[in-house]
Amino acid sequence: MNVFVCSEINAGQAKLMPEEAFHCFKVLRKKEGDEIILIDGTGNFYRSVIRSISKNKCESEIIEQWKEVEKGYYLHVLMAPTKNISRFEWFIEKSIEIGIDEITPVLCKHSERKNIKLERLQKIALGAVKQSLAASIPRINPMTPFDEVMKQELQGYKICAHLSQEKKHLKHLIPARSHYHVLIGPEGDFSENELRLLNNNDWQMAVLGNKRLRTETAGLVATQIINGIHF
Amino acid sequence: MNVFVCSEINAGQAKLMPEEAFHCFKVLRKKEGDEIILIDGTGNFYRSVIRSISKNKCESEIIEQWKEVEKGYYLHVLMAPTKNISRFEWFIEKSIEIGIDEITPVLCKHSERKNIKLERLQKIALGAVKQSLAASIPRINPMTPFDEVMKQELQGYKICAHLSQEKKHLKHLIPARSHYHVLIGPEGDFSENELRLLNNNDWQMAVLGNKRLRTETAGLVATQIINGIHF
Repeated sequence: MNVFVCSEINAGQAKLMPEEAFHCFKVLRKKEGDEIILIDGTGNFYRSVIRSISKNKCESEIIEQWKEVEKGYYLHVLMAPTKNISRFEWFIEKSIEIGIDEITPVLCKHSERKNIKLERLQKIALGAVKQSLAASIPRINPMTPFDEVMKQELQGYKICAHLSQEKKHLKHLIPARSHYHVLIGPEGDFSENELRLLNNNDWQMAVLGNKRLRTETAGLVATQIINGIHF
Repeated sequence: MNVFVCSEINAGQAKLMPEEAFHCFKVLRKKEGDEIILIDGTGNFYRSVIRSISKNKCESEIIEQWKEVEKGYYLHVLMAPTKNISRFEWFIEKSIEIGIDEITPVLCKHSERKNIKLERLQKIALGAVKQSLAASIPRINPMTPFDEVMKQELQGYKICAHLSQEKKHLKHLIPARSHYHVLIGPEGDFSENELRLLNNNDWQMAVLGNKRLRTETAGLVATQIINGIHF
């Protein structure tokens, strides 16, 4: 099954994003009268019938609408992207499969990777959403310096996954059905100053198990732990 | 830090596996008198001093021994390998990081991949063990037909992860500190006959969440759910 992302819905009529129209027309060879499933990126699915289609435009008429199963929480993972970007991209893909709402790449003192291609990451996210037949597209933020993250007013639980002396497991630190921000440190660990700032800004330290995990694995494990407390 | 796998330990003397000796000598340029950390693959670490080294042989004297932190359970994941083998290899790597004891590739009726290269998978497992600084090497079994799996006398809990009508989440089906066998179906799902055999052979059906996961993601999520119930 394929789902397509629409750019606009108005009075029961939907327009596909241009690249989606191209794929629909050129690759899948859909034509007027064919049924397609659309998503709006915010949790809604639509069954629709194509009324007009060309290589950069597709308009369809909505005949049915339904909502994605709600997971009942909001998860924002903040992570220093890995030196090898494919490992970070892998995290984006897999966390979307499990369920995530927002991802912020964070620039830490010991980050080996200083920049990212935001558009590429957003494209990977979109692909993962379509692949996993979800209807919500997570927000991928631009690279944000650690100090700026500390200044942000984040509502909900702020947890930093860190193999420190603190031995509380993430799952014991948070109640279900809330809003979570989970920060994962860089491959070279946080600096002393960053650890001090985390403490000063009320981030709770948590462990994800008793093994040392790679950055991207830690991100995914945190995503699954939070998903798991909702069952 | 590097750890090396030894092939033999006798009266305080350890020998490295030949390929490990090669890496130690040629790549890391270790020499007599250098200290190296060894693992025996069954949960023990050793600090040792090299007594003799060449490109295919390394003997060292053990000066200290300690045990890996025990995770307190035994996890065996049985999974139909993915058509794209790199996704299965990824599962092996990541599940070792989190903690797994045994992996059995299973040949199901709807398996798109009919064969594997066992030696390559074992090599990937070994690399992941070394990378994650673990001391236990999980067992990777040869491809096993589904019918044979059904005939095996597996001790402990037998659970099949499946998005069926059955809605019990894996974490509610099993107690902590036990022996678990978790079966993950192929990309094309189990056949009707396989589902009947699972039922006849007392495999419990479980869900891993409310989203459809790819085979390899399901394997990793199951691994993390089981790890998570021990905290």
